[in-house]
Amino acid sequence: MEGLVRCSANYVPLSPIGFLERSSKAYRDNTSLVYGSSSYTWGETHQRCLKVASALIQLGVSRGDVVATLSHNLPEMYELHFAVPMAGAVLCTLNARHDLAMVSVLLRHSEAKVIFVDPHLLEVARGALDLMAQTDTKPPILVLLTDSDSSSLTFNSNTYDYDSLLATGTDKFEIRRPNSEWDPISISYTSGTTSRPKAVIYSHRGAYLNSIATALLFGMGAMPVCLWSMPMFHCNGWFVLRGSAAQGAVNIIIKKVSPRAIFDNISMHKVTHMGAVPTVMNMIVNSPASDRRLLPHKVEVLTGGAPPPPQILARMEEMGFRINQIYGLTETYGAATNCVWKPEWDALPLHERSRLKARQGLRHLAMEEVDVKDPVTMESVPTDGKTMGEVMFRGNTVMIGYLKDLKATKEAFEGGWFHSGDLAVKHDDGYIQVKDRIKDIIISGALNISTVEVETVLYSHQAVLEAAVVGRPDDHWGETPCAFVTLKEGFDDVSAEEIIRYCRDRLPHYMAPKTVVFEELPKTSTGKIQKSILRERAKAMGSLS
Amino acid sequence: MEGLVRCSANYVPLSPIGFLERSSKAYRDNTSLVYGSSSYTWGETHQRCLKVASALIQLGVSRGDVVATLSHNLPEMYELHFAVPMAGAVLCTLNARHDLAMVSVLLRHSEAKVIFVDPHLLEVARGALDLMAQTDTKPPILVLLTDSDSSSLTFNSNTYDYDSLLATGTDKFEIRRPNSEWDPISISYTSGTTSRPKAVIYSHRGAYLNSIATALLFGMGAMPVCLWSMPMFHCNGWFVLRGSAAQGAVNIIIKKVSPRAIFDNISMHKVTHMGAVPTVMNMIVNSPASDRRLLPHKVEVLTGGAPPPPQILARMEEMGFRINQIYGLTETYGAATNCVWKPEWDALPLHERSRLKARQGLRHLAMEEVDVKDPVTMESVPTDGKTMGEVMFRGNTVMIGYLKDLKATKEAFEGGWFHSGDLAVKHDDGYIQVKDRIKDIIISGALNISTVEVETVLYSHQAVLEAAVVGRPDDHWGETPCAFVTLKEGFDDVSAEEIIRYCRDRLPHYMAPKTVVFEELPKTSTGKIQKSILRERAKAMGSLS
Repeated sequence: MEGLVRCSANYVPLSPIGFLERSSKAYRDNTSLVYGSSSYTWGETHQRCLKVASALIQLGVSRGDVVATLSHNLPEMYELHFAVPMAGAVLCTLNARHDLAMVSVLLRHSEAKVIFVDPHLLEVARGALDLMAQTDTKPPILVLLTDSDSSSLTFNSNTYDYDSLLATGTDKFEIRRPNSEWDPISISYTSGTTSRPKAVIYSHRGAYLNSIATALLFGMGAMPVCLWSMPMFHCNGWFVLRGSAAQGAVNIIIKKVSPRAIFDNISMHKVTHMGAVPTVMNMIVNSPASDRRLLPHKVEVLTGGAPPPPQILARMEEMGFRINQIYGLTETYGAATNCVWKPEWDALPLHERSRLKARQGLRHLAMEEVDVKDPVTMESVPTDGKTMGEVMFRGNTVMIGYLKDLKATKEAFEGGWFHSGDLAVKHDDGYIQVKDRIKDIIISGALNISTVEVETVLYSHQAVLEAAVVGRPDDHWGETPCAFVTLKEGFDDVSAEEIIRYCRDRLPHYMAPKTVVFEELPKTSTGKIQKSILRERAKAMGSLS
Repeated sequence: MEGLVRCSANYVPLSPIGFLERSSKAYRDNTSLVYGSSSYTWGETHQRCLKVASALIQLGVSRGDVVATLSHNLPEMYELHFAVPMAGAVLCTLNARHDLAMVSVLLRHSEAKVIFVDPHLLEVARGALDLMAQTDTKPPILVLLTDSDSSSLTFNSNTYDYDSLLATGTDKFEIRRPNSEWDPISISYTSGTTSRPKAVIYSHRGAYLNSIATALLFGMGAMPVCLWSMPMFHCNGWFVLRGSAAQGAVNIIIKKVSPRAIFDNISMHKVTHMGAVPTVMNMIVNSPASDRRLLPHKVEVLTGGAPPPPQILARMEEMGFRINQIYGLTETYGAATNCVWKPEWDALPLHERSRLKARQGLRHLAMEEVDVKDPVTMESVPTDGKTMGEVMFRGNTVMIGYLKDLKATKEAFEGGWFHSGDLAVKHDDGYIQVKDRIKDIIISGALNISTVEVETVLYSHQAVLEAAVVGRPDDHWGETPCAFVTLKEGFDDVSAEEIIRYCRDRLPHYMAPKTVVFEELPKTSTGKIQKSILRERAKAMGSLS
């Protein structure tokens, strides 16, 4: 068409940086961050981010450089999610549970120029930097974060610290905006329990779109109150961090996640929205009455990782929480689908609601398509709720690639779809339901067993606190289900036989566990049970037959 | 960075078409459209749009072709906002109040291949097409819409009609998605009261972003109930149309906008959101008690065009409406800013709340920047609430240009900003406040008079129903304010002198009208008072001195 012009008046690269700039006006004097007794306003957060961004440039950070963090949740972690991109740099939030060897590997791989470190993790960071120096790699500049709740910690005086760095910055700083919305904004190493972590790269475009879509799917109106029980380092502050900035949220950051801290903060700050991995929900429903508080209103809970078992759903709802199940991977910026809830379902009995809520649902507004496909033929599975296929995604909130691993990127995007590695079915209303990770599924006598389905039955047993099922080698069947279980307090007398019997009453015989082991479950820092470790343990037991 | 790949897995042109596709699953069996006794579900709306899109292609519509409408609000108008882009075509919604000469001019200018016509406007459309044929221009194919409330109308049998056309289509149709998100999605002719209408072109990208930002600023959660009192042809279904599709809204379409119809529909359908131009709000607050209904809950009202006067604001709020003032132009996809409301303002007295609510506020999340600048130096005005400058915009929700008018496009984007033609001030909290259109401002004895400020005082008089102020030629002062006023019923005895005295008590002497004329105000179809006509009338009166 004739008459069109593309210029700075009508084309601007999408970037979440603008969220903070807008909130600094729209919510200038409203609270942005609360951590213990300290708090900030959106006006202050904006000023502080500008100063940190300008200070980073004074430290020698160039456009496209990587700036890492090794930290638990702190107000400074929130700030860095904006300050680092505002300096034109790429944020790499390392998992706070990594050991020094892993930290040094990831710093070398990402070529981070600066690392911001939680005072509690200083030993790990120093160790990692020493290791790098020994192997002739120039280690990044270490900047120590301030933990206002741990002022007793003292440090070596030749270390940079966040507050002094910030003080050298200026809020007159001109933001280094992305040249293209395709420019990288962050690197997230996948928690990868089996293989080496992969470095997932997000773009400014994807971060913008995902944040807005997540705010909409989570029903975040203006000025929600968000409680941070999830680690900010995961999926780069989850998608919720930048979405909360867009909506001018009050962000409540807690030091140690416990039922008491959660209830106290909900009650004190009138929390409206929070995230909770299944283990946190488990903690909440099994907390002693003395730790609980009456909720001031319905609290929206975003959960993912595993569908909420009916018992947990029922008890969370009784307490006044509303569970929203989302599903996604680090590669999809976190949330990619959610179980869109229909008002007419509210009236259904609990087991029906649980069955519906256990489904991963539909794509959100920024994901173009989610489908369940045969990974070989790339044909969609029928919408029969039975035929399994691999979950695949297409859209602007799929990562732009794995850093320095073109081969892995190309494999992940084979056929023009991102391959999730998750197995699912598609129901007749288009909702998908994840059955298992491809690598978790048990093949027993040529039949596929969804470990998720077995675990759902285990969780429905009144004595079971946590459960995970993996395959145990079996000379006859190939493998058989082996359940690792922890019991609730006061239920120590429950036997393996009783658990097996309980499952056989509720599942086809071949799906019921043949082995039940009572022991602590190994978990990643994000609360995911590490099935790879359990698989090793089951393997070590040898064949059952 | 190394390892990145851009492909269909992670890059998809933004387009609102996906909203409908998602809603057809997420809200499949929930109501999409209600018109009189007929209604549709989102599943049905999706199917119907696919059929109409495929039928358009059978009619010979190619990618990039223009498809026009000449219609009041009808369910089919809603459908065409999706069906036309799904066919790869560009939607051009003509103003239903245009006469046949103007319609023929715009059809020729836009080169529309098809025109969908409201049965009530068939004469106008036929006249326009005849006129085109006479001047050797191939007229577009005419397709008659169905108005289920006007079944008594009968038509010439050789005219296409919507239902038959739809019946020839298929829902197996493969959507012609945009090749680029920069592709045009629609053409809107500005209502341009003085000059010839300009053809504003929107892109798929802008339409997507504006819809989502508007849903967020309007606080539209999932499944709102939207009442259509605004014409869909304006700004291409306003921004609200596509946003409502994204959120799975129930859209209530009413034939004739009257206070009674508004109250009845709110009550019957539990409306949560509606738009209302100032004249509609005026109608509502001045409606007889017998037309009113108790509102089932707070109803959010989006208004624009002029700040709500305190009296109207107070009475709307008493009735249970909450007024959200937005501001924008056709060139900014409708809403570009809104008066972001802060909870702490709720407790202020009415006149304070009105003063704050009269401000146009801050950009929304999809607009990059709004500023008030000196149009010559391009310097920002100080944030003193006094210095006037021109409102300018930058961002992805600024039009991509004026069709066939590169010169006008370049002028509008001079200096990399879109020049709005509106005069405003900027307050110390960053909120902007529009004072006048540049062409409306009165210059009297070298002083600028904001006609909006004079009108606000006029509206505060208990007898005044509507008011508009323009400049009247004056040999001594250049021009002086001349007010055109209509009075409320029962106030016919109010004199021009009293109105002038009332204004002099509340405004600097030079700002008070010197002339007051009681007569009907000419309006555009969107309810805007046509000041150009009033200026002509004031001119015809001759000089006052």
